[in-house]
Amino acid sequence: MIIVLKPEATKQDAEEILKKIESVGLKPLYMPGAERTVLGAIGDERVLGKLHLENHPFVDRITPILTPYKLVSREAHPDSTVVSIDGVQIGGGHFMMIAGPCAVESYEQMYATSQAVKKAGSHCLRGGAYKPRASPYSFQGLGLEGLKILHKVSEEIGLPAVTEVVEVEDVAQVDLYASAFQVGARNMQNYRLLKILGGSQKPVILKRGMAATVEDLLLAAEYIVSEGNPNVILCERGIRTFETATRNTLDLNAIPFIKQHCHLPVIVDPSHGTGVREYVAPMAKAAIACGADGLLIEVHNCPKDALSDGQQSLNPDEFAYLMKDLRFFVEAVGLKM
Amino acid sequence: MIIVLKPEATKQDAEEILKKIESVGLKPLYMPGAERTVLGAIGDERVLGKLHLENHPFVDRITPILTPYKLVSREAHPDSTVVSIDGVQIGGGHFMMIAGPCAVESYEQMYATSQAVKKAGSHCLRGGAYKPRASPYSFQGLGLEGLKILHKVSEEIGLPAVTEVVEVEDVAQVDLYASAFQVGARNMQNYRLLKILGGSQKPVILKRGMAATVEDLLLAAEYIVSEGNPNVILCERGIRTFETATRNTLDLNAIPFIKQHCHLPVIVDPSHGTGVREYVAPMAKAAIACGADGLLIEVHNCPKDALSDGQQSLNPDEFAYLMKDLRFFVEAVGLKM
Amino acid sequence: MIIVLKPEATKQDAEEILKKIESVGLKPLYMPGAERTVLGAIGDERVLGKLHLENHPFVDRITPILTPYKLVSREAHPDSTVVSIDGVQIGGGHFMMIAGPCAVESYEQMYATSQAVKKAGSHCLRGGAYKPRASPYSFQGLGLEGLKILHKVSEEIGLPAVTEVVEVEDVAQVDLYASAFQVGARNMQNYRLLKILGGSQKPVILKRGMAATVEDLLLAAEYIVSEGNPNVILCERGIRTFETATRNTLDLNAIPFIKQHCHLPVIVDPSHGTGVREYVAPMAKAAIACGADGLLIEVHNCPKDALSDGQQSLNPDEFAYLMKDLRFFVEAVGLKM
Amino acid sequence: MIIVLKPEATKQDAEEILKKIESVGLKPLYMPGAERTVLGAIGDERVLGKLHLENHPFVDRITPILTPYKLVSREAHPDSTVVSIDGVQIGGGHFMMIAGPCAVESYEQMYATSQAVKKAGSHCLRGGAYKPRASPYSFQGLGLEGLKILHKVSEEIGLPAVTEVVEVEDVAQVDLYASAFQVGARNMQNYRLLKILGGSQKPVILKRGMAATVEDLLLAAEYIVSEGNPNVILCERGIRTFETATRNTLDLNAIPFIKQHCHLPVIVDPSHGTGVREYVAPMAKAAIACGADGLLIEVHNCPKDALSDGQQSLNPDEFAYLMKDLRFFVEAVGLKM
Repeated sequence: MIIVLKPEATKQDAEEILKKIESVGLKPLYMPGAERTVLGAIGDERVLGKLHLENHPFVDRITPILTPYKLVSREAHPDSTVVSIDGVQIGGGHFMMIAGPCAVESYEQMYATSQAVKKAGSHCLRGGAYKPRASPYSFQGLGLEGLKILHKVSEEIGLPAVTEVVEVEDVAQVDLYASAFQVGARNMQNYRLLKILGGSQKPVILKRGMAATVEDLLLAAEYIVSEGNPNVILCERGIRTFETATRNTLDLNAIPFIKQHCHLPVIVDPSHGTGVREYVAPMAKAAIACGADGLLIEVHNCPKDALSDGQQSLNPDEFAYLMKDLRFFVEAVGLKM
Repeated sequence: MIIVLKPEATKQDAEEILKKIESVGLKPLYMPGAERTVLGAIGDERVLGKLHLENHPFVDRITPILTPYKLVSREAHPDSTVVSIDGVQIGGGHFMMIAGPCAVESYEQMYATSQAVKKAGSHCLRGGAYKPRASPYSFQGLGLEGLKILHKVSEEIGLPAVTEVVEVEDVAQVDLYASAFQVGARNMQNYRLLKILGGSQKPVILKRGMAATVEDLLLAAEYIVSEGNPNVILCERGIRTFETATRNTLDLNAIPFIKQHCHLPVIVDPSHGTGVREYVAPMAKAAIACGADGLLIEVHNCPKDALSDGQQSLNPDEFAYLMKDLRFFVEAVGLKM
Repeated sequence: MIIVLKPEATKQDAEEILKKIESVGLKPLYMPGAERTVLGAIGDERVLGKLHLENHPFVDRITPILTPYKLVSREAHPDSTVVSIDGVQIGGGHFMMIAGPCAVESYEQMYATSQAVKKAGSHCLRGGAYKPRASPYSFQGLGLEGLKILHKVSEEIGLPAVTEVVEVEDVAQVDLYASAFQVGARNMQNYRLLKILGGSQKPVILKRGMAATVEDLLLAAEYIVSEGNPNVILCERGIRTFETATRNTLDLNAIPFIKQHCHLPVIVDPSHGTGVREYVAPMAKAAIACGADGLLIEVHNCPKDALSDGQQSLNPDEFAYLMKDLRFFVEAVGLKM
Repeated sequence: MIIVLKPEATKQDAEEILKKIESVGLKPLYMPGAERTVLGAIGDERVLGKLHLENHPFVDRITPILTPYKLVSREAHPDSTVVSIDGVQIGGGHFMMIAGPCAVESYEQMYATSQAVKKAGSHCLRGGAYKPRASPYSFQGLGLEGLKILHKVSEEIGLPAVTEVVEVEDVAQVDLYASAFQVGARNMQNYRLLKILGGSQKPVILKRGMAATVEDLLLAAEYIVSEGNPNVILCERGIRTFETATRNTLDLNAIPFIKQHCHLPVIVDPSHGTGVREYVAPMAKAAIACGADGLLIEVHNCPKDALSDGQQSLNPDEFAYLMKDLRFFVEAVGLKM
C-alpha cells in the first residue's frame, strides 16, 4: 500500500502513520520527496484496511498494490474453474449456451420455447419467475407458479433450468425448482443475498450491475466464494453509459480482463446488452471471439406476444440459425461445444 | 403514445397495430408520411403498455407522451407534500437536516456525535447498523446491536433517528428502533423491499441508485406510494460517471427537475456525493441554493478513527460551522430552518 | 415530428404552432388528449428545424421521426459503400487491416515496423506525425519530418499510409504525403476540418469522439459527405465510461447499429479501445465477429521503447500471430481478406 | 512515482528498471513484497515520463505522486489569480457575470439583448459568431459579420465582449473584435489552438469538454499558461453521463475541486449545463454557493425566435430577476459583485 501525504504534512505526521503501520505487523517505508512525502506498507493489505488511514487529515490518497479480491483472483488460483450445472460443464474449455424466455408466462409458452432451444442445441434453459421491473405497472412475473412451470418443463425437456432469485426469503423455494441461481444486475450488490447463496453448493450466475466496475463484480463474487460456494459464473450484460442507441453498452473489454484476473467462467448476455433483436447474433459471436465461456440468450416462441423484453428476444428460427453460425466461432477459439 | 414504424412496414401492418390500439379502448391515429408511417394512440398509456407494441417486428420505436410515474407526479398532485419524521417536517417550505455517523460503532461514538449535531442544530440523527460494503473484508455494521444503540441515543438526545434497511427480513426490526427507513442506493431497485415499505406509514428516505436516472428514482418512489405510503423523501447522492476526481458525481441538476415534476420532498447527501470532507460544505450550500428541502450529512466525533467513510465525515466543529453558514442560504431560498 | 405540449398550453397556443408548421409547407396534425395535447408535422423535418419550435415556452419536448443524418443513412442508400485507399478496398465484403506505430519516431522505427506488418499481411500502414496529447509535457510528434518519413517508408514498402490531420492549416501538407486522412477522436466535432476534408476525394477515417453518440458520429460523417466526399470510413475506438479497468470502453454494439443504419464501412481500433496489449487480439477478433469491415492496430518494432502508447502496442511477432488467427474469423463472417 | 511490477517479474527485471530510474538522476527505491514487487522513483516525475516505463512488459501499473499539471496548480502558486477582461476583474474575490445570446443573429437582436443584460448588471457580453453544431443542416453562425456586430454593440453599450474562437486561422480576426477568447467544449483538446492562444495576453475562457475529467481541463489550461498566457478562466458546463433528463450533467463537484487544486478563476455555464430554461436560475445560485467566481448565461431578447439554444435562454425579465436574486448568494460567499 502506497500512502501519499498532503503537502502540509510534517515529519511528525508521517511518523505517527508509520507507527500505525508497524503496529499491525507490516513493514513501513518512509520516502520523503522534494514536494511530497510518500509512505509504504509492505505485507497483507487487507490487515492494513482496518487502520482506515484514508481518514487521516494529512493523507492525500492511498494506492493499494494487491487486488481487493483474493479467492476469485487468478493469482491465487491459476487454473480456470469448471462449474457444472446438473452435469453440464462451463469453463476450462467447455462452452455453455443458456436460452429461454425473459419471463415464464405459461406452460405452453415455456414448453414450446424450451423444445425449440433444445432442438437447436442449447445446454440449459432460462426463464424468470420473479421479474424486477422499473415500473410498478409492468408485468412482475408469475412467482411460485412460474417456478413450478419452469421446473416441470425442465424435467420434461431434459435440460437444467436457471432462474433469478431476487430476495433472501425466496432462496429456499428457488433452490427446490432450479438447477442454478441467477443474481440479477439490480441485485449484484445485495450482499445479504450473496452470502446466503455462498452457503449453498448450487451454481450462481452473477450478473454485473449497470453501474458496477469489473472490480465491483469480482468483489461481489468474492462474497459468494468466501462463504464456501466456489461455483460462480460471472455474466457481462451491459453497463449504463451516455449512449442511447442501444439499451445498454455491452462491455466486452470486460471479458479479456476477467479471463486474465479471475479463474471463474464468464458468460455474456447480448439480449440485455443490446436490447435489440437484430444485434443479438453479432454480439453473441463477438462475445465468443473475445473469450467468453458461454452465452445467455432470450428466446421466445412468439416474441410479438412476449410480456417482457420481446423487442430483444429471438424467435426459434433466429435462435437455431445463430446456433449453427456460432459453431465456427466456438471452434475458432478452441472451445468444446 | 407515438409509434414510429420501420420503413419496410406496409399499410396492412399499420392497420393490424391500429386495431390493437382500438381494442383496448384508445383512440388510434394514422399518420402516413413520405418516408415513414407514424401511428398515435390517445388515452391512458398505461393501458397500452399491456399490448407490448415494442415487440412488433415492424415497430421502430415508441415515444410515450405521459410520464410513466403517476402518483408521485406534480401533474397529478400540484401541491408539495410535507413529510413528518416524528413531528419534524420537511417539504413545502420546511428545511430538514439529518446528521450523524456513517455507521453506528459504539454507544460512546454515537452519543458523542449525536450530542454534537443536536447542539449545532440538526433536526434528525442518522447512523447505519447494516452496512452494504463492496468488499466482504470491510466492516459490515453492528446489526441489531447497532439498532439498539441508535434507538437508545435517539431517546436520550431527543432527536428522531433514521437508519438504512437493507433486506425485507429486517423491516420489522428496523421499524421498532427507527423513526424513518432509509433505502440505500444499492437497493433503490429492490422492488420487494419498496413494496413492503409501501405497506407502512413510516417515512422512507429513498436514495438514488448510482446508475439510476431521475425517472428511475421517481418510478421507485411510485412503488412505495402506490402501495399506500405517501411519506417518501427522495435523496440525491451522486451518480457514476467517468470523473474520478470525486467519489461520485453529485447531480444537482436533478433537484430542479424533481421539484418541477414531482411533489415529494428531496434532500441531498453531499458526503457520498463527493466523498471528500472539504467539499461537503460547499456542495451542501449549493444543494440548498438550487432548491433541495434538506440535507443528509455524515458527522463523526473523531473522523480519523471512523470504521467507514471517515474521509468524507465532518468533525463536530466543522459541522457546527457549516450549520451557521447554511442559515444565509436557507433564508435566501425562503425555507424555514 | 411529434410535438408534446406542456399541460398548461391552451388550444390557442396549439393553433399558433400548427400555423407555423403549415407556413413551411408541412402537414399539421392536432391530437388533443385528456392530459396532454400532442401536435404532429408530416414532411421533411429538416425544413421544420428552422422554426425552432423547441424554444416555444409551451413546448415540452419534440421527437423527430426521421434520422437527422440523411446522405450517410442506409435508408437513402441501401447498398454498402466500398472505399478504396490507393486501390486497397474496404466495405461491401472487403476486409482491411491498417497497422503501424502510434507515432512516427524515426526512419528506422517506421521502416522496421512497416516491413513487419506488411510481411504479416497488413494492407495499409498507420503512423502519427502530429500527436494531440493530454499533457503539454508529452511527446508531440515529429510534425513535417514525421510525414516525410511515413511517405518514404510507404513508397519503399509498397503499402498506402494513413495519418492523422489535426488542423485545417495542415490539410494540404498531409494531403501530399498520405493516402488517407485520419480525423482523431478529439477532432470528431471540428466541423471546419470536416468540411475541408469534404472538399477532397481522398478517403477520411473518422474516429468516434470519447463523448460522441453513434448519432453524433454519423452526423460528423454527414458533414464530410455533404461537402462532396463520399469516401468516409467510420472508426469505433472506445468511449468514456465509469469503467477504469481499461483505458476506454470499446463500444462494439455500435458496429451492428452502424451497419444497420449507415452504408459506410466501419473499422475498429482495439488498441485505443482497450489500452492494454493483451486485450488487443481478443477484441480485434470480436470486432470482426460482430461485423466490422476492418481494423486499425498499433504495432511497434520495440514497444518497450515507444514514445507513445507503448503499453497498447503489439510487437511484430504478436501482430503476425494475430493476423494468422484472424483468418478464421474473417472467413466465418464472409469477408475477403 | 510508484511502479507495481507484475507477479511474474524477476529481481533482474526490477534491477533493469531501477537502473533506468537512476540514469535520469532520480532516486530509485526497491520494495520487494510477498506477492508483488514495488519500485519507487523520487524526484521530478516529469523527467521520468521520458522513460515510458508503462511500456515495459513486466510493469503492471504506475501511480504518479505529483499532479501532471504544474503551472496551474495551487501547490506551485498558492494565491488565487485575478484575471481582467478590459478592466473587469474575476477571481480572488471578484464576481463576474457574462451574459448574452448563444449566437449573434443580427444587430437588432444583439443590441436589444446587450442593453437588457447591461441594465440588469452584467459585467460582460457573450455572443457566438462561429457556431460548431452537431448537424451540418443547423445554423452555423454569421462568421465575420457576427464578429463585427458583436464588436459594434460592445462599444456602443460599453461592456467587453467574449466570443468563441473555433479555429487557428480565426485567432487574429477574433483578436481584433473581442476582449476575450472563448474555447468551446468541443475544442478543449485542440492543443494547437491552445498553444496559439498561449502566445497572446488576452484572457481565455476555457470550457470543459463533455468527456474531459477535471484533470484533463487543468492540463488543457497548462497548455495555454506554459506558452506564456496566465489569463485563463476555467468554465464548467456539464459533462456527458447516462442521465437524459437534462442536456448535460452540470458537475458542480468540480468547483470545490478546482478551487482546492488550481489558482485560476472558474465560472459556470448553467445554460448548457442543464439545457432547460427553468433550471438556469437554481443552478446559477448553486454554482455561486459552492464557490464559482462567475457565471456565463445565455440571454436572448426573444428566446422563442432564437436560431440556436432558445430552449435554454432566459428572456430579459428572467435575467433581471435572477441578477437581483443572485446578490444574496454572492454576498453570502463573500464575493464582490
